[in-house]
Amino acid sequence: MPTGVGVAVVGAVSLVGEALIEVLEERAFPLGELHLLDAGEGVGHTVPYKGRNLRVSAADRFDFARVQLVFLVGASALVSECHVAASAAGCRIVDLSGSISVERQPCLVPEVNGALLDSSPDRLAVASPLPASVALALALAPVRHQLGLVGVTVTACLPVSSRGAAGVKELARQTSELLNARPLEPRVFGRQMAFNLLAQAEEVDPHGHGAQERRLVDELRQLLQNPELAVAVTFIQAPVFFGESLVVSLRCSLDVDVQALSAALEAAPGVEVVGGDDYPTAVGDAVGQDVIYVGRVRCGIGDPRQVNLWIVSDNVRKGAALNAVQSGELLIKDYL
Amino acid sequence: MPTGVGVAVVGAVSLVGEALIEVLEERAFPLGELHLLDAGEGVGHTVPYKGRNLRVSAADRFDFARVQLVFLVGASALVSECHVAASAAGCRIVDLSGSISVERQPCLVPEVNGALLDSSPDRLAVASPLPASVALALALAPVRHQLGLVGVTVTACLPVSSRGAAGVKELARQTSELLNARPLEPRVFGRQMAFNLLAQAEEVDPHGHGAQERRLVDELRQLLQNPELAVAVTFIQAPVFFGESLVVSLRCSLDVDVQALSAALEAAPGVEVVGGDDYPTAVGDAVGQDVIYVGRVRCGIGDPRQVNLWIVSDNVRKGAALNAVQSGELLIKDYL
Repeated sequence: MPTGVGVAVVGAVSLVGEALIEVLEERAFPLGELHLLDAGEGVGHTVPYKGRNLRVSAADRFDFARVQLVFLVGASALVSECHVAASAAGCRIVDLSGSISVERQPCLVPEVNGALLDSSPDRLAVASPLPASVALALALAPVRHQLGLVGVTVTACLPVSSRGAAGVKELARQTSELLNARPLEPRVFGRQMAFNLLAQAEEVDPHGHGAQERRLVDELRQLLQNPELAVAVTFIQAPVFFGESLVVSLRCSLDVDVQALSAALEAAPGVEVVGGDDYPTAVGDAVGQDVIYVGRVRCGIGDPRQVNLWIVSDNVRKGAALNAVQSGELLIKDYL
Repeated sequence: MPTGVGVAVVGAVSLVGEALIEVLEERAFPLGELHLLDAGEGVGHTVPYKGRNLRVSAADRFDFARVQLVFLVGASALVSECHVAASAAGCRIVDLSGSISVERQPCLVPEVNGALLDSSPDRLAVASPLPASVALALALAPVRHQLGLVGVTVTACLPVSSRGAAGVKELARQTSELLNARPLEPRVFGRQMAFNLLAQAEEVDPHGHGAQERRLVDELRQLLQNPELAVAVTFIQAPVFFGESLVVSLRCSLDVDVQALSAALEAAPGVEVVGGDDYPTAVGDAVGQDVIYVGRVRCGIGDPRQVNLWIVSDNVRKGAALNAVQSGELLIKDYL
């Protein structure tokens, strides 16, 4: 019997990669060897882990037969190549890249559809969905029957950390330039991000949709087990460093009792409800936390079949790193 | 025949009041005497107008019989009292306060329902609606039949200037405190506003709705002449100084042709469409402009009866001051 699970993290030199290593350290993950992998400038970096500094190696030269579990962070050609190599080596894979369709590689939010792995115990690869999909699934899966959920409209306000460390640096630099009346030099976002909102978080296709918007629709329908669910989604980019805010409006086929809905949300795993006169915010509540926060739970104005919610979540930790590690724990539970 | 229209501006010492005076100066408004009125600390301030400095007088001592047209800016007991006094004096009134229901005092967006005054030429008072209602009406009224518009879901991201000069000052102060690692002292917004998003822009009632959210539903139904229109609205507060951004999702009863929709929007008065690979932003496009900007015009993902839009507008100028002055021009056109 092995003494622990050998793990590789591809894309280790990134906000999510580093958060993932932190989460592995914090949780009682039965870790054997840990290999940190990346490409380009990331190779040679060191990342702290349990009091040591682990060196990041070149992913393209790594022998995936040395590990049993692989986390794939970020969307890149490197990640796609490593997916192929890790699969060929028989590794179990948690893929955060979103580069494979949910039909071929189902997405997993352990609190919501962890039973997926009980019904397919031989499954070797799962996707960890977008942070916004994680948050929406955590809030909506436990209440969808109670609501007779028919449609979801969501405005996902992404923080600059959704673009990694470069996004964080850019907002800080632009803010300082503006406050000091220096000329603004947009780089990462291509225009003024400080004190402004951007209509989209990425390039869009000829139909006007971003890849993350399409991905969210697919993931949400799968996680809520409703391929017919009507989903309208807009990702916008907000001048916030960390933490995602979602403005959610639901169409329901049943008249909704707000008290009962709030009670069901409070009982849902991974969800905290903030009610009364208060509401949660990304910065004040969600960042650094292992749960999502739901507030402003209310019906429509004169419409009991409309429900509106506000959800905040730590996009790096809860939405990505923690969900991936929780998924990894399920993938290897029969292995030990 | 009078040489010009005597005008009073109640609430002159405010962002909207000052913008309104600017707009009066810029346009060929047939202005006679101009009286600037306010209460409390505002009294005694001076406001520049055509190279002179006009002194602000106490509104509660003003004889409204001296003017023919009154603009009421801001929601306060003072404004309500002045409404009564101005009505009693037979003045025509443009009320920006939102304190009177749209059934009793219809709202006016000249490009959209300016004909209201042709059909009721004896009307003396109109409301200038919320900036978000102005923007939505400008974009949706010309296309609602083409879409078979059934429902509107909107996330209105308000800038801090929606809370006046105090909101602007607070965001600047908080940003500087955070960048300089000084302790944060929230005042106007009650919590961290810099680099954060707030779930609501005002206090909410026991059903969870803000007064502006209720007002927008009423105004939009009236402006779009559809009392049955399903409207889901959330006002959030964003760390942006000026300019409102609206994320809009529409449910339609007809399959929508995006090209035809874009063309109709481009032809609509007061509307500019930004298409192709580009999109407008509040800071980059809308602020200081007399039109609203619409971008990201697209159908739903696989759903031709869903339409999504992004709208940016100058909340102080186009959404309030200019709309009020345009309304005033219509109210007095038969007077001269």
